[in-house]
Amino acid sequence: MKTPTVSYSITVRARLKNQLGMFARLATAIADVGGSLGAIDLVEAARDHMVRDISISAGDEPQAHKIVQAIRKVDGVQVISWSDRTFQMHLGGKIEVTSKLPLRTRDDLSMAYTPGVGRVCTAIHEDPNKVFQLTVKRHMVAVVTDGSAVLGLGNLGPEAALPVMEGKSILFKTFGGVDAFPICLATQSVDEIVRTVELIAPVFGGINLEDIAAPRCFEVEDRLRQTLNIPVFHDDQHGTAVVALAGLMNALKVVGKTFDQVKVVIVGAGAAGIAIAGMLQLSGVTELILCDRQGAIYYGREEDMNPRKQRIAETTNPQRLRGTPGEVLTGADIFLGVSAPGVVSVADIEKMAHDPIVFAMANPDPEISPEDVVGKVRVMATGRSDYPNQINNVLCFPGLFRGVLDCRARTINDEMKMAASQAIAGCVSDRELAEEYIIPSVFNKKVAEAVARAVEKAAVKTGVARRERASWRG
Amino acid sequence: MKTPTVSYSITVRARLKNQLGMFARLATAIADVGGSLGAIDLVEAARDHMVRDISISAGDEPQAHKIVQAIRKVDGVQVISWSDRTFQMHLGGKIEVTSKLPLRTRDDLSMAYTPGVGRVCTAIHEDPNKVFQLTVKRHMVAVVTDGSAVLGLGNLGPEAALPVMEGKSILFKTFGGVDAFPICLATQSVDEIVRTVELIAPVFGGINLEDIAAPRCFEVEDRLRQTLNIPVFHDDQHGTAVVALAGLMNALKVVGKTFDQVKVVIVGAGAAGIAIAGMLQLSGVTELILCDRQGAIYYGREEDMNPRKQRIAETTNPQRLRGTPGEVLTGADIFLGVSAPGVVSVADIEKMAHDPIVFAMANPDPEISPEDVVGKVRVMATGRSDYPNQINNVLCFPGLFRGVLDCRARTINDEMKMAASQAIAGCVSDRELAEEYIIPSVFNKKVAEAVARAVEKAAVKTGVARRERASWRG
Repeated sequence: MKTPTVSYSITVRARLKNQLGMFARLATAIADVGGSLGAIDLVEAARDHMVRDISISAGDEPQAHKIVQAIRKVDGVQVISWSDRTFQMHLGGKIEVTSKLPLRTRDDLSMAYTPGVGRVCTAIHEDPNKVFQLTVKRHMVAVVTDGSAVLGLGNLGPEAALPVMEGKSILFKTFGGVDAFPICLATQSVDEIVRTVELIAPVFGGINLEDIAAPRCFEVEDRLRQTLNIPVFHDDQHGTAVVALAGLMNALKVVGKTFDQVKVVIVGAGAAGIAIAGMLQLSGVTELILCDRQGAIYYGREEDMNPRKQRIAETTNPQRLRGTPGEVLTGADIFLGVSAPGVVSVADIEKMAHDPIVFAMANPDPEISPEDVVGKVRVMATGRSDYPNQINNVLCFPGLFRGVLDCRARTINDEMKMAASQAIAGCVSDRELAEEYIIPSVFNKKVAEAVARAVEKAAVKTGVARRERASWRG
Repeated sequence: MKTPTVSYSITVRARLKNQLGMFARLATAIADVGGSLGAIDLVEAARDHMVRDISISAGDEPQAHKIVQAIRKVDGVQVISWSDRTFQMHLGGKIEVTSKLPLRTRDDLSMAYTPGVGRVCTAIHEDPNKVFQLTVKRHMVAVVTDGSAVLGLGNLGPEAALPVMEGKSILFKTFGGVDAFPICLATQSVDEIVRTVELIAPVFGGINLEDIAAPRCFEVEDRLRQTLNIPVFHDDQHGTAVVALAGLMNALKVVGKTFDQVKVVIVGAGAAGIAIAGMLQLSGVTELILCDRQGAIYYGREEDMNPRKQRIAETTNPQRLRGTPGEVLTGADIFLGVSAPGVVSVADIEKMAHDPIVFAMANPDPEISPEDVVGKVRVMATGRSDYPNQINNVLCFPGLFRGVLDCRARTINDEMKMAASQAIAGCVSDRELAEEYIIPSVFNKKVAEAVARAVEKAAVKTGVARRERASWRG
């Protein structure tokens, strides 16, 4: 039976007879089919009955149905209605486009819209730089996808990708005060993606590429970085890499090793894997092996290569090891998974060096379940919010783009990404640092601000900022 | 000297000595240079002085500077700072992308984002229609421009158009509860505009085209209407036509004439002019003359024609009148201007039939100033918010798109546009109807709802609605 999670939780509205032990019987019935009780709200209280909204987590959808059936069978309980909490939250979408100005009077309209707005248009026409000052470009990021690699679910297309992009938007706003809008493209052609983003760019101060499959994502990002004068950032590559690196910086402190000493195996040579490899190399890692579906990538391999993998093959795996992820994992200090569940076994993990560090970041299900390696791994991290040490991109992108927008950076370079990793890692103090606390919580309010300021500083230092003072956020 | 308006208003922060008659002297100084005093706020009060924020309307920018100079010269007054109120309002843009959900706990994240969101994506992938239910597509409209005809200001480009598109977004939200996002395209090629809108369409439930120059706008709209399964509406054409027609319905009631009796001259054969002509013909007008820069359009004219003008020439101007707008205006009942200031003179207006109706809708400056024709025109309307009878598209598009989104209409047809005109006109009761009140105020809260329900009803009746019950707006 799967572990109950809120992702599969339901709210059941039920009428319960007022009699001794009624709720206990209900709770037992739920527990018997593996449900986990959450919040309980009172809707209505009468002399002979109560109506309650009961939140219950299940392990999957069939189990949710089983729970409802079980409740129906409890004597004295009547199910009035029930709903899936996750679907309930998504009804009608998760974002809104709201006005910063009240429009209550004719005067408001005359200034916010015609005729007054014409003066603002003219001012921007005369000095195009003013678009950063007098429009939402100053705060706005496009979250662009082609729907080809939605979470770990694959090529679901642009419509099915929209809930994720909206989710990204609300994370941008909630954690970084950045306005972000989802752009889900009805094409998977590199040329069309690139051209469309170029054409919609005037409204945006930055472009966040999201859930675009490799190797297409590399070309899209490279070309857009060349043609646009605003930053382009493929979050699945660099966001994941920035946060994973932050986690590794702290994990290495916990186990007392350094980047130049460790052997690292990355499983997954897609967007994230290749970006993580790049940042690990910048950090001094030399013993680094990337694996894809064919196993270890080595110099001279011919099957299933692409230009990125080729470049990686030239600078990693110095001993040209071959074999499955499990095989090359022998003696490794760090396992980084950005692939899919099941690519390594518990036995593989057991062959790692002492104090193994395992980042199993596949979404929604990690490469190896934390439950299965309890006591066998020194530091365990996943991509999920329902385990400790969540390697969550939300620690990076809201603050990173806040910093980038505040200084009107032209691009995001390695120095800025490194600065972001260090800022995130630095939010866990040496006193707090522990096996289950290597990375700050996504709810740690210090993180986004720390990342923003570090990124801005690095942008100024490397000469890509168009504006050096950012105290003014009008 | 130009009439002072809030569009050119400033806020002056000044320190005034506490002495008798001080404020009166200041007010006189402002009035002497033509400024018009607005709101006055107290910032700080001390024994010997007060600091006040004083709002003052000017006629234009040079006059605003003159006013500040005049205040500086008043004995006992010190100007601390001053700002242009319109520019102040636009700093950092006018819209925000906000979250409808609180993200306070891990559980919130697990449902709104990973892993829970994956279930929502999968559901849409399995049944694409669910995108209307589980995403913001249900409420979201794209406001698309190429910046080629920004207000009456011309081809200012996409960046300079953004303040208008943002303004449109906040009108959509404030008046119709519709989420709208500005898309300002860095191209003026029909093919590229069409293709880009097709590619970004998955996120949107409707497309509002805006400020695209004629005749390009016609082809863009026609092609998008063919390829997209969501409504495409060029507001400068149809929005203006819907509201102008609503105003005319009521203006004719005031003067006691009917559509089939009147002679109408439209000056401006761009987007709006041609659309208005179409709706007037649907309403029964037969004596209709369109003019462009070359004068009256007639069947057989060869200079400066395009396919739309050609079609118009075939069905209007039955007597094939030639000449300037002023010349063909002789004996006309209705003048409709969607062109530029100065295309007709006061003398031209004086040659119209009894009880003339003049809709001078050029933005920001009307074809003829209402001040100049006081007593010479029975019903006068403009496009401006600072005169009575404002023919403002905001009376149409928020309610129209609300109705369209609520019933998931595939398109917007003539019946729906007519229904919108009638709904708007119907918001002014016969009891209220008067020369200076032919069209409801943009702040009349009944309008959007009335338009939405009328449009929805017409959509259902004509078979273009995909959803017939819209009480549920989750």
